[in-house]
Order: sequence, then structure tokens, then C-alpha cells
Amino acid sequence: MPSFDLDSYLQTQVERVEQLLRSRSDEMGVQVPPRLLESMRYSLLAGGKRLRPVLCLAFAEAVLKQSNVPRMVEDCACALEFIHTYSLVHDDLPSMDNDDMRRGRPTNHKVYGEAMAILAGDSLLTDAFALVAGGPEPVRGVLCRELAVASGSSGMVGGQVLDIAEDRPAHIDYLTRMHRLKTGALIRAACRMGVLAAGGDADALARADVYGDSVGLAFQIADDVLDVTGDASSMGKPVGADAAAGRFTFPAVLGLEESKQLAARKVAEAIDAVKTLEPHDGPLAALARYSVERRS
Amino acid sequence: MPSFDLDSYLQTQVERVEQLLRSRSDEMGVQVPPRLLESMRYSLLAGGKRLRPVLCLAFAEAVLKQSNVPRMVEDCACALEFIHTYSLVHDDLPSMDNDDMRRGRPTNHKVYGEAMAILAGDSLLTDAFALVAGGPEPVRGVLCRELAVASGSSGMVGGQVLDIAEDRPAHIDYLTRMHRLKTGALIRAACRMGVLAAGGDADALARADVYGDSVGLAFQIADDVLDVTGDASSMGKPVGADAAAGRFTFPAVLGLEESKQLAARKVAEAIDAVKTLEPHDGPLAALARYSVERRS
Repeated sequence: MPSFDLDSYLQTQVERVEQLLRSRSDEMGVQVPPRLLESMRYSLLAGGKRLRPVLCLAFAEAVLKQSNVPRMVEDCACALEFIHTYSLVHDDLPSMDNDDMRRGRPTNHKVYGEAMAILAGDSLLTDAFALVAGGPEPVRGVLCRELAVASGSSGMVGGQVLDIAEDRPAHIDYLTRMHRLKTGALIRAACRMGVLAAGGDADALARADVYGDSVGLAFQIADDVLDVTGDASSMGKPVGADAAAGRFTFPAVLGLEESKQLAARKVAEAIDAVKTLEPHDGPLAALARYSVERRS
Repeated sequence: MPSFDLDSYLQTQVERVEQLLRSRSDEMGVQVPPRLLESMRYSLLAGGKRLRPVLCLAFAEAVLKQSNVPRMVEDCACALEFIHTYSLVHDDLPSMDNDDMRRGRPTNHKVYGEAMAILAGDSLLTDAFALVAGGPEPVRGVLCRELAVASGSSGMVGGQVLDIAEDRPAHIDYLTRMHRLKTGALIRAACRMGVLAAGGDADALARADVYGDSVGLAFQIADDVLDVTGDASSMGKPVGADAAAGRFTFPAVLGLEESKQLAARKVAEAIDAVKTLEPHDGPLAALARYSVERRS
């Protein structure tokens, strides 16, 4: 049985996302002070895996059984990447992770200064809601709600606070909760928003929910594992940085082998959840495997 | 003719807003890491004029002809203050205005550190959209859109970028555009959202628009004037700070007298815009006058 060609699929979808991000940030940028727009686009258009938009598009396509999706799906895909990008820009700041490099380039604040990096992040976050809320009734409201709950104090930002807390217990429950919030919530929202924006039913939404939760966790475990086993040139940043900084990772808490096994179980759960949504060995299953099998 | 008792009105409305902010941040805080919630509430519940929520409620009441308003109006009022508070927390940061005091207390980053102040601001911003998007159809979508456009890169954040730009021309057009974005856009949105959340018609919305634009500008001119003429105890912060820092103000560009006259003209335009929405000398007219006649 021919296996799904993930490389070709990802190439098509990532290029589609790049084009969408360029055109939406162009359209929205007409009234924006040029230096702010430049700083926003510097980080937004810096490449990356585009995992959240790709998952959003993949779920919409699975629901619609075609690759032609409504503009609302595309706008959700872009909004998810706006939010993800803002979180990276703020996390890299000197008072947070103090990272100088991101995706092989100097971080936003190294190029534009701290004040502009904070404001570029604030803008990307806010403009994400302008994009989604600019869509049609009746879905734009529920989509804004999904995005806000996943990103705010009881979602992504809450997870970042758990990550920088000084009194973190070195326990798998805390680590799992932290990542469910910090990266999992937005990945899960990406899957759910793809279904909702495409008009999917409650069953599809529930399946997207399980898939997103599992892939979100698997992806983060793989990130931690790659920091131990990856190489600097494919990562675009120094490896071993987490361990050197004494950061709190799955390999540090569970060990490397058990971390890999947990990630593999989560991938299997994700694939099982979507088996009624797509033909055998379709893009969702391939993306779930990719979440841990990637090299960067 | 008995004049409107603004003091008593403001006392009632501000207390109502305080209660709403306490209860909404309580309800939303259940899943939030305690230190993050504490930092958010430190700034959110630090007092202040609550101008944006008060204007939102006042417009809803003018449309509905009663003080009993739907929960959607209350949630919009809170969301506006969430956004205003986040903007103050981020503006006070060392890399921006580097302010140590706000409303007579140490600024957020002085108490919680820079990283937490950035994240508390990010949360307040995001949670504002969760609040509005948690409302009923069909208004929640359009209300999210109003809030996002007013707050993002072509609104409030854009204005802050114009404010911190090094090459600002000392020209009234630049100063006016900067303030229309930096403070005016959210004040105008407060008025418009009050009308929209209360189910007002297109005429009421257009009147709220003119009023909000005029009051927003008048309010900012008055802020600059107060920095020259006010006293430290009623301001809760040092006066003369703008001039000392060489900041770009209406008195610096237009002179003190001409600034006061411009503010007075804007107040008159605002009052004229709402004369068909409320009985003679009602709360909206009184609030427009208050925007320049306050002492802090």
C-alpha cells in the first residue's frame, strides 16, 4: 500500500501558509507605522514549521473532503501563527529566556530593540483577533473564543508562567500540565478551529480535541528530546541549551527512553482518534507521526 | 434648571465597574497560576477613573433608556479596562517609559518583576477577548472586531509606536494622529461597543463614533495640560514629568492656552453629537465636560 507523501504535502501546505501570512499581513498593514509592521513581519515571515496553521488546514480539509477551504479557515490558520509568533517574540526577551537566536536569525529584540519587540508581540496577538473577528457569522464569535481561551491566562500564557516559576516541582504531573498549557492548548485549538471554521460536526470536533491534545504533548516531548539528540545545523539554534540552562524537560524528569515511549503512545492515540475522519494513512496520521519524527 | 450630579453618578458607576472587574477576574481566574492572577489583579484593581467602562455603560444606558443592561455590556466594559490596564503595564516597563509609580503605587514590574509584568499584560489582553467572545450571538463577533481593531497595530499599539519613535516631527498633525491611535481608538471603541452591545441602531453608532473621537482627543489634551498645571497629590504621580523627559505634548506643540481651547472645542463637538441620545444635560454631556475638567 503506497504510503502518504508527507514531504510533498508539507511543501505544498507550508508554501500556502507562507503566502497567506504575507498577504494577510500586507492587507492589515496599510495603516500600521512602518517600523512596527517591519518588526512584526520580521518574526512572522521567518520560516518555521507552521505546524498550527498546517493542522488547522488539515482538519478543515478532512471535514470538507477537499483542499479548497473557506477564507475563514485561512484566516484562522494565519491567526494561529500570529499568536504563536508573538509568544516566541515575548519568550525570547531578555527578562524571559534571553535568547539571541531564533530560526537561525537574531531574535526580534536584538534587531528592533526591546520596546519594539514587546509592541510587535502585542500587535501580533491583537491582530490575530482582528483577523478571526473579521470573518463571517455565525462562526467568528466561537472561533475568537477558542483562540482566546487557548492563548490567555488559563492557556498558553499560564503555561509560560508555570515554566518560569522558581519553585517548579520536578514532577511529571507539573511538567505535563505546564506543556498542555504552554504549547498544547494552542495546538489543540488549531485542530478544533479547523473543524469549526469548516462547519464540522460535534463528533469531528471531539476527535480534533483528542488528536490536538495528544499531538501537542508529543510535539513538546520531541522538542525536549531533540535538544538532547539533535544537531545545531538542522535546529537553527544551539543544542543542549535546555540542559545547560538547567531547564525543566521530559528527558530530565522521565529519562530519554521513557520520554520517547510516551511521545510514541501519544502519537498512536492521535492517529486512532482521527481514523474515521480520513482515509487510511492520510495527512492527519502523517502529521501526528511527524510531530515526533522530525529533525528540527 | 437642575444640573446633572456627576459626582454621584461617577461614584455609582465606578463602584459598579470595580465590582464587575473583581467578579469577572475571579470567575476567569479559577484555572490561572496564582502568581499570574495576583499580578493581573494587582494592576486591574488598582483604581483609576475607569473612563472606558463608564463610557461603555453610559452609551448602553442611553440606548436602552434604563440602567439595567445585558451582561454583554458589562463584559465589554470589563474587557475595555483589561485592555487599558495591559497597555499601562507594558508602557511602564523599563524598556518603554520606565515608570516606577502608577496610581500612587509601585508599577507592576517593580512588584512582580519584568517577566511577570509582560505576561500579566499579555494575559489581560488575551482574556479581554475571551470575555467578549464568551457573550451571545449575534453581537460577540462584531464586538471582538471593534476591540481588536481599536487595540492592535493600526490602533492603540500603533499609537504607542508613534509615541516612542525617535524621529517624531513636532507637528500637530503627527501629535493628533498619535493620540487618536494611542488613547483615542480605545475610548471611541468603548462608546461604540456600548451602543452595539445594547442593540443600538446605526444612528446611535455614528453618534457614539463622533463623541468617542472627540472625547478621546479632549481627554488626552487634558492629560498633557494636567502634567503642566496639576498637583502631585491628586495625580498620584510626579507632575512635570512629561516636560522633564522632553516628551511630546499638546502644550509643548500648541502652547497651553491653545491646547485648552482645542480641548474645549472637542468637548462641545461631543456634546452636540449626543444631544438626541439623552435628555438635556445628561451623563454623556457631563462625562464629556469631565474629560477636560477633572483634576487627575
